[in-house]
Amino acid sequence: MAAFDFAPLLPAGLPAPAARWTGLAKFSFVGGNNDADAVPVEGLTAAVNAVLRREGRSLATYGLAHGPQGYRPLRDFLRTKLARDAGITADTDDIMIVSGSLQALDLVNQALLARGDTVIVEQESYQGALTRLSRLGVNVVGIPLDQEGMRMDALATALSDLKARGVRPKYIYTIPTVQNPTGTIMPEARRAEMLRLADAYGVPIFEDDCYADLTWDGKRPRAIHAMAEHSNVIHIGSFSKSIAPALRVGFVVAPWQIMAQMLALKTDAGSGALEQMVLAEYCPPHFSTHVPELTRGLHAKLDTLVEALNAQFGTSAEFEAPKGGIFLWVKLPDNVDTLKLYQAALKDGVSINPGPEWSTNKVHSKSRLRLCFASPTHQQIREGIAVLADVCRKEFGVPLRSANVAKAGAAE
Amino acid sequence: MAAFDFAPLLPAGLPAPAARWTGLAKFSFVGGNNDADAVPVEGLTAAVNAVLRREGRSLATYGLAHGPQGYRPLRDFLRTKLARDAGITADTDDIMIVSGSLQALDLVNQALLARGDTVIVEQESYQGALTRLSRLGVNVVGIPLDQEGMRMDALATALSDLKARGVRPKYIYTIPTVQNPTGTIMPEARRAEMLRLADAYGVPIFEDDCYADLTWDGKRPRAIHAMAEHSNVIHIGSFSKSIAPALRVGFVVAPWQIMAQMLALKTDAGSGALEQMVLAEYCPPHFSTHVPELTRGLHAKLDTLVEALNAQFGTSAEFEAPKGGIFLWVKLPDNVDTLKLYQAALKDGVSINPGPEWSTNKVHSKSRLRLCFASPTHQQIREGIAVLADVCRKEFGVPLRSANVAKAGAAE
Repeated sequence: MAAFDFAPLLPAGLPAPAARWTGLAKFSFVGGNNDADAVPVEGLTAAVNAVLRREGRSLATYGLAHGPQGYRPLRDFLRTKLARDAGITADTDDIMIVSGSLQALDLVNQALLARGDTVIVEQESYQGALTRLSRLGVNVVGIPLDQEGMRMDALATALSDLKARGVRPKYIYTIPTVQNPTGTIMPEARRAEMLRLADAYGVPIFEDDCYADLTWDGKRPRAIHAMAEHSNVIHIGSFSKSIAPALRVGFVVAPWQIMAQMLALKTDAGSGALEQMVLAEYCPPHFSTHVPELTRGLHAKLDTLVEALNAQFGTSAEFEAPKGGIFLWVKLPDNVDTLKLYQAALKDGVSINPGPEWSTNKVHSKSRLRLCFASPTHQQIREGIAVLADVCRKEFGVPLRSANVAKAGAAE
Repeated sequence: MAAFDFAPLLPAGLPAPAARWTGLAKFSFVGGNNDADAVPVEGLTAAVNAVLRREGRSLATYGLAHGPQGYRPLRDFLRTKLARDAGITADTDDIMIVSGSLQALDLVNQALLARGDTVIVEQESYQGALTRLSRLGVNVVGIPLDQEGMRMDALATALSDLKARGVRPKYIYTIPTVQNPTGTIMPEARRAEMLRLADAYGVPIFEDDCYADLTWDGKRPRAIHAMAEHSNVIHIGSFSKSIAPALRVGFVVAPWQIMAQMLALKTDAGSGALEQMVLAEYCPPHFSTHVPELTRGLHAKLDTLVEALNAQFGTSAEFEAPKGGIFLWVKLPDNVDTLKLYQAALKDGVSINPGPEWSTNKVHSKSRLRLCFASPTHQQIREGIAVLADVCRKEFGVPLRSANVAKAGAAE
């Protein structure tokens, strides 16, 4: 009873097969996981009871008979929320619910990209976006960032160079509000400049606003979508960071011309209806009080992470504490290779995001890493960073022991 | 403020853009929608309360920290259920939860197919499978069916012919248990013959068992997967038909070699967790009592549909009443073009699935159609079929008025 061998049937170009799942690391600083204590379990439970009692029978119909753009009350909430928070003027029918913002990435990419196309991204960017572009065989031009996000001088140069070579990029992908992984927030003036450049070169902007709800002061600049005068911005967002990531609910706001293409490509018979129903019931009365509670907890965890890094790494860890979000982008000494650090730390139960996986510039990112602080407890943050410092010291000789000793008290 | 024009940026080969959603037809005989009265709203509500109280905080972590194959208690239930109902021996780790069986189709296709490949399907088959294969640029060989499903003499001939031309098909796609759209159930002897042929030609079988729970007598043959001796069967199923389609929860049982490829391609950060949690809580105590209640109601609706067709179409409608499922495959007189009937009926508020969209043989299927009977009420079935008969008579001269008059009493 020899097992059938599928290998000769596999097409070229598949990603490497997955390994068996072995669980999360003891100290997990990876992924967009959120704070378990901040999940509004009671509110979600009350919401699901109310909405199932009222509309549970509609689960018998694909998409609850609300059409391929998703459950209408959730789109209504988003219309109101996006107007209030992001300044976006959109009709309910300009909004599509998707199964997490990753599906939005897939749909935008399928609607616009072919192998050999060119796109512009921030030099440091979301790994899920970069790996998708790589698999699609798309040329990716990374634009360096500074403390205000994507640098417009570098964008202007890149657009001009590409035009000189006859290349019209398919889009400029940006995470302007709490940039992933750098945490920067792009000011409105720079957003306006990006729009000016996009108009001048006829390139749409793909605005990923997944983290925009999580600013410490609850404020954010207007969305680029809100500032656009020519309907050239595709805006996506998510409930993963504001409510819970295991609910796979994201959304797209886009002009109908491109929305109609994305809808034709969304052949999944609808995104999960129960999760849409729960959010539509929970969010209108609770979202604007829930989020500040969530961000207070996140900010406190960031403080703990910063203290732990200062205590354990001293001057070996350089970073700019972000004004929101769930991650910290850290620079270690030049001799540290974070891909190797990742492997070594994992053996000791600490998982990190090595910089090169979040960057188009493998040299610049070699000694950088992303640390997510929302999911681990304060205690796990302290312990995990201490383990990470030990591993880093063993592997790379930094941080020096003295940094640890000198600052150990600060972590208490 | 001219709107940006995306058209020059769109790649070749996109599907036609979607039209604006205008709602379901008044009399809707399309899609896999289920019976609203049969959604176990109370049971699902109790389940969601229990599971959220116990594990709601875990929504903060992608995939509830159960890994990319999905929520483990739901996989445990499936392991037990598949052993009991389908004779499948599988470990929990042989099972992957997906966002509806459509995602399973996508993952299997991505893992195995490249443009120009060849697959074998039943001549009448699921539209969602056929349109996917068409978009992938795959050669589709349709095998005729009889009352016991895919004909093995025709399969043997097709495999032999393909081999003579040096073509090794990537898979044989079959819906053996309540075939879509014909409703046939393939007996075990024929399943064994399919396995023998698959082994002889080195072709895996892709078994889609989405409707297998819905037999009137609650019995079903063993799954082909259960009968295979060489791990050459990929088995998929769904909760869409047994519980509710708007919950997007399906599953795959597959050998690890191909499962590992599918996992590498499943880049959605997990399927919706709340829906998995609810099903895992609801199903173990309730599934085996819920399904017979559901099928009793479906069987009664089929009876109403059969009566309505006999009353309105008389001998102009030929069909074999299926032993389960939610659809009836109907043959109208040869002069009827169901693609045209579809258009005309829609104007009068009746939607049907025209045969050519569910077949690889456009001639054979031209005068055939699929009628889904789970979603409309008994009254809507009677009224809708009466409208459909009127439209058909106006467009194609059949059924004759006399058939209607002679049998009108039977529909009461």
